[in-house]
Amino acid sequence: MSYTLSRSGLLDKLLGDPEVEILLSDQADIDAMLRFELALAKAQNKVGLISDISLGAIETAIAAVDFSVADLTDGVAKDGLVVPALVRAIRASLPESAKADFHKGTTSQDLIDSSLMMRLVDVIDIFRQRLDCILDQLDLLSTQDGHLDLMARTRMQRALPFTVKDKLDTWAAPLRELRATIPGDFPLQLGGPIGTLGQMGDHADEIAKDLAARLGLRHPARSWHTDRRPLLQFANWSAELSSSLGKIGQDVALMSQNEILDITITGGGSSSAMPHKNNPVLAEVLVALAHYNATLMGGLHNAALHENERSGAAWTLEWMLFPQIVTTTGAALKTVASLLSRVKF
Amino acid sequence: MSYTLSRSGLLDKLLGDPEVEILLSDQADIDAMLRFELALAKAQNKVGLISDISLGAIETAIAAVDFSVADLTDGVAKDGLVVPALVRAIRASLPESAKADFHKGTTSQDLIDSSLMMRLVDVIDIFRQRLDCILDQLDLLSTQDGHLDLMARTRMQRALPFTVKDKLDTWAAPLRELRATIPGDFPLQLGGPIGTLGQMGDHADEIAKDLAARLGLRHPARSWHTDRRPLLQFANWSAELSSSLGKIGQDVALMSQNEILDITITGGGSSSAMPHKNNPVLAEVLVALAHYNATLMGGLHNAALHENERSGAAWTLEWMLFPQIVTTTGAALKTVASLLSRVKF
Amino acid sequence: MSYTLSRSGLLDKLLGDPEVEILLSDQADIDAMLRFELALAKAQNKVGLISDISLGAIETAIAAVDFSVADLTDGVAKDGLVVPALVRAIRASLPESAKADFHKGTTSQDLIDSSLMMRLVDVIDIFRQRLDCILDQLDLLSTQDGHLDLMARTRMQRALPFTVKDKLDTWAAPLRELRATIPGDFPLQLGGPIGTLGQMGDHADEIAKDLAARLGLRHPARSWHTDRRPLLQFANWSAELSSSLGKIGQDVALMSQNEILDITITGGGSSSAMPHKNNPVLAEVLVALAHYNATLMGGLHNAALHENERSGAAWTLEWMLFPQIVTTTGAALKTVASLLSRVKF
Amino acid sequence: MSYTLSRSGLLDKLLGDPEVEILLSDQADIDAMLRFELALAKAQNKVGLISDISLGAIETAIAAVDFSVADLTDGVAKDGLVVPALVRAIRASLPESAKADFHKGTTSQDLIDSSLMMRLVDVIDIFRQRLDCILDQLDLLSTQDGHLDLMARTRMQRALPFTVKDKLDTWAAPLRELRATIPGDFPLQLGGPIGTLGQMGDHADEIAKDLAARLGLRHPARSWHTDRRPLLQFANWSAELSSSLGKIGQDVALMSQNEILDITITGGGSSSAMPHKNNPVLAEVLVALAHYNATLMGGLHNAALHENERSGAAWTLEWMLFPQIVTTTGAALKTVASLLSRVKF
Repeated sequence: MSYTLSRSGLLDKLLGDPEVEILLSDQADIDAMLRFELALAKAQNKVGLISDISLGAIETAIAAVDFSVADLTDGVAKDGLVVPALVRAIRASLPESAKADFHKGTTSQDLIDSSLMMRLVDVIDIFRQRLDCILDQLDLLSTQDGHLDLMARTRMQRALPFTVKDKLDTWAAPLRELRATIPGDFPLQLGGPIGTLGQMGDHADEIAKDLAARLGLRHPARSWHTDRRPLLQFANWSAELSSSLGKIGQDVALMSQNEILDITITGGGSSSAMPHKNNPVLAEVLVALAHYNATLMGGLHNAALHENERSGAAWTLEWMLFPQIVTTTGAALKTVASLLSRVKF
Repeated sequence: MSYTLSRSGLLDKLLGDPEVEILLSDQADIDAMLRFELALAKAQNKVGLISDISLGAIETAIAAVDFSVADLTDGVAKDGLVVPALVRAIRASLPESAKADFHKGTTSQDLIDSSLMMRLVDVIDIFRQRLDCILDQLDLLSTQDGHLDLMARTRMQRALPFTVKDKLDTWAAPLRELRATIPGDFPLQLGGPIGTLGQMGDHADEIAKDLAARLGLRHPARSWHTDRRPLLQFANWSAELSSSLGKIGQDVALMSQNEILDITITGGGSSSAMPHKNNPVLAEVLVALAHYNATLMGGLHNAALHENERSGAAWTLEWMLFPQIVTTTGAALKTVASLLSRVKF
Repeated sequence: MSYTLSRSGLLDKLLGDPEVEILLSDQADIDAMLRFELALAKAQNKVGLISDISLGAIETAIAAVDFSVADLTDGVAKDGLVVPALVRAIRASLPESAKADFHKGTTSQDLIDSSLMMRLVDVIDIFRQRLDCILDQLDLLSTQDGHLDLMARTRMQRALPFTVKDKLDTWAAPLRELRATIPGDFPLQLGGPIGTLGQMGDHADEIAKDLAARLGLRHPARSWHTDRRPLLQFANWSAELSSSLGKIGQDVALMSQNEILDITITGGGSSSAMPHKNNPVLAEVLVALAHYNATLMGGLHNAALHENERSGAAWTLEWMLFPQIVTTTGAALKTVASLLSRVKF
Repeated sequence: MSYTLSRSGLLDKLLGDPEVEILLSDQADIDAMLRFELALAKAQNKVGLISDISLGAIETAIAAVDFSVADLTDGVAKDGLVVPALVRAIRASLPESAKADFHKGTTSQDLIDSSLMMRLVDVIDIFRQRLDCILDQLDLLSTQDGHLDLMARTRMQRALPFTVKDKLDTWAAPLRELRATIPGDFPLQLGGPIGTLGQMGDHADEIAKDLAARLGLRHPARSWHTDRRPLLQFANWSAELSSSLGKIGQDVALMSQNEILDITITGGGSSSAMPHKNNPVLAEVLVALAHYNATLMGGLHNAALHENERSGAAWTLEWMLFPQIVTTTGAALKTVASLLSRVKF
């Protein structure tokens, strides 16, 4: 389920990341769930669990489906998630004989978690490209200005002289390692109502493998309904990234203080009251985004603890936190790219 | 500045609170800022700081202003907040002689913080009404079913018998106290560029008093640019409320377990895979909202620490957290009212 | 139950607060619990619930009790709290006729929560004295140096000139308000096994009133076993205080940067590698303590949500968080006093 | 620096982990720092940076050193960390000619971070053994009782029947994966005053490689003074582990409810007021430890953001959080082993 921040316009360009947000939108979520259902039907047909006729009917129904958002929203309000209403809507357009063959042996969580994983694959593509650009920017700055002298500062005091290259290296090194360890493991979720895939019979594993391949996801040894570590690991990498970017912001804000001017920022923020101000807005935003993600991480670790075979409470909490961590990280990447294009040593 | 969560439709009815969200929208924010500027001009005119002609021009300009959202958004992206662009837009339509009399001696933070306070006054009206309704619901349940026997449970084990009234009392008592201590202190923010009101001369205090009265806010002894306790106190009360409501959800989820059935919920959530399920969705949502607010509270306390006379980073972080605490609390009030109307002891 | 941080020596003087820690020690906890039991017996005797003979035996047993810490620790490991072992130990030395009259109608939580409240009364005395001293220090600095010019800085940039007095006012104002709203409400906890005081009969309220008076606590309308707001309110005030103190640290660290030197610190920290360094250690510690408390606040709000009539999990979590918030706040008060004695504008 | 929790006795056996705590004690910290200094001197001697005579003198001084804890504690209070006092104490016993060869080109952070890494190697040995035992316990339970029927429960409601083996698999699967990804990367910290190893000349890299080998640490490409991801990764794995263990506690607490009794716990906690109670204390403790670690994780991500070449504030905050995450995880491992030995399906 999506729970993206909207800033209704005004804060969009400062704190948002439209490119990532669209991947976490309701529409993208539903589209991915439908792709999941279709691929599942194909995989189940392949092993003979559902008939060709049923598959054909499901294909037709999914292709033709035209949801009323209002209906779905009412369904979410009642059921706590969108899947029952979505399944009802599609089943309603299926012939009687195919109804039971749709959404067969699967469950809401399979759709919702797999849909998220499918879209994280695309998110990571964006993050990878942005990271590469930022590393290029840092390399370019190093080539241009790396030889310049700079004062290293520890514990808020002048320490010893080093160079702009040394400083840039401390910014680039964690980013380079995060680039090298960029998330690449996106497991399919497929467990059925209680995680055991019991209703798919002997073909369960075969279906899962085929389904994973169709969706571009990894085929895991078992379902992970109550084991939220795939999301924790993505989030932790993201939070490491946003704090590594926040550190650049923190440094730039300190280095661009008027008396220090180790760095200048062109096109800084103006003040409504003090025309002489040149506020390090992007640097401050990076610090804010890093601390925002840190805050959400505490919550996400709390949400990782499901009771029994599925926790409605923990899972709902996760929806409120995880997508925000992703978009906040995206915004930090966007912001640092913009900031680096404006700094001058 | 506003930073409300949008659920793009699907999660709106489950986790949202449109009535409160509209008070925290960009539009409401800008409207309140304009009311602030107009009231400030009137207060400054009253003590002779700006002329009748300037006041008239400001009134006309504010009444006529028609912002381009795109312009404002670009301004936010550059300046980190909307006020400089907003002031520029209005000043552009003022005669030369009145330009300096607009936004005189004040600063972005005065507008943004006061605008928030003005709208929290309205938020609290909504919360008060909802709390009263919930207390009525609890009273009614107590009258109807209070005499019924119930098992008290401590540390997840049966303890001793008590009554439905005893249980309802534990739900109502904190809500009653929170109702009695509902936030009622909404201070004006007015400090000028560096918090000292230096540019308003000898009339500073008189202007502040008049302005506060015009805006329905308290006249504080001094500005609170870097002292975020007014927001912390509102948020802490809100988080106490959402955890008191979350406790009801937690109890209902436990009491409605199939083997226990101390309570039944009508119209619970359905499952996409298990037709017999009657999931305690609203109860789970209450638990999720409580833990979400708890998560945000940790961040808000971090954001309370401003460096020097204004922190861009801490303040931006606050914008990302505080409005969400308010809307989450509103959603919890809405949800508990709905849940209480569906439970049966 | 106590769960204080110990720094085994090395960090004691940097981050500790022995004066407060001793009030939160096991010994102080047990002493307060025994005072509770004795006062309860007296209050129950006064209304005739237990006989003079029982009271006398209880007085003797409590006066003579000599716990084996090992026994108590084993009891905690088994029961999750110390009270069952403590009650067993005292009951063992009572004559048969008095055994049932000891710990009559009360429960572990009554002892543990009341014991904490009793000691918070003393903690607040210490905090009050320290706050008064700090406000005196700030007044003195203002008298001495208040007239000096200083540069106000917003968003990390030079804003406009003001004075040392203006700066000191921003530090003192929140402290003065926190001093004026210092916690003064310390409710007795008395609910018996399930919070209803059912086993104390018609005299329950009379006993509670008398007991509260004997222990220097407020007599609340009802027990608050699952309503943790008394602790949340104390903690929130404490976290507001530690962030107000952390702000002073943050400012001093920024103001004492070599190129700025708006303030100098005598006796700053030395470096193992750079003899010229004069690190603003106390200022940094204040920032760390503020963020540490902010972190714990997020957890404490999570711990506020008890299931049914008592949550072992939430309560244990509270023990791990609350005492640390108290001692961290104490350490921040101690640290700012030391820092203010070393700064020079 | 160490900042371990002490429970002064009473809570030691419930929430503590003496075996891990001793590795994080002051004494273990100082011992590791001395091993670091000695190994550094040897590595520097090997490349000819310091003379044989200096090395001999350093070996003698380190072997003979007898710190006054009081001296060190005063040093920490002044300098914010123990290293300057420790270096002073050893230098005082060195001949003049060797003084400059001791602690040559290194800095406090090299000692403190490397000392932590050295001890984490030992911590992980303990964690590995405990994890193996727990996995054996789960295997044994599965062999014994795996065939028994059990009700799967989702969203707090009965879902469908499965078996004890299915339930145990959901507990074991994340633990097995965490066992497979147990932290194994413990990088040396060696950067000198500003992270660049500038004062070790051309031999810097050679010294670092040799030193890492002597201390059993990885030789990293560069220092990580401001890149706290090695600690974040250890902590994140730990928090994933403690929430996977907390999930077992959560399940057991729910399954052992009187009306459900899917599981019984022998030797549960007794109540001071209700003799019939059998409280699931260990299960509750696991939930509390998981949420405690989640709380600390939020703070640790905040502490990951260092300003410039070293942040005193962020680093001090890290000391307050990281060791607690380690010991909390250790306590959770201990507790689950104890709990699993007492459950009966």
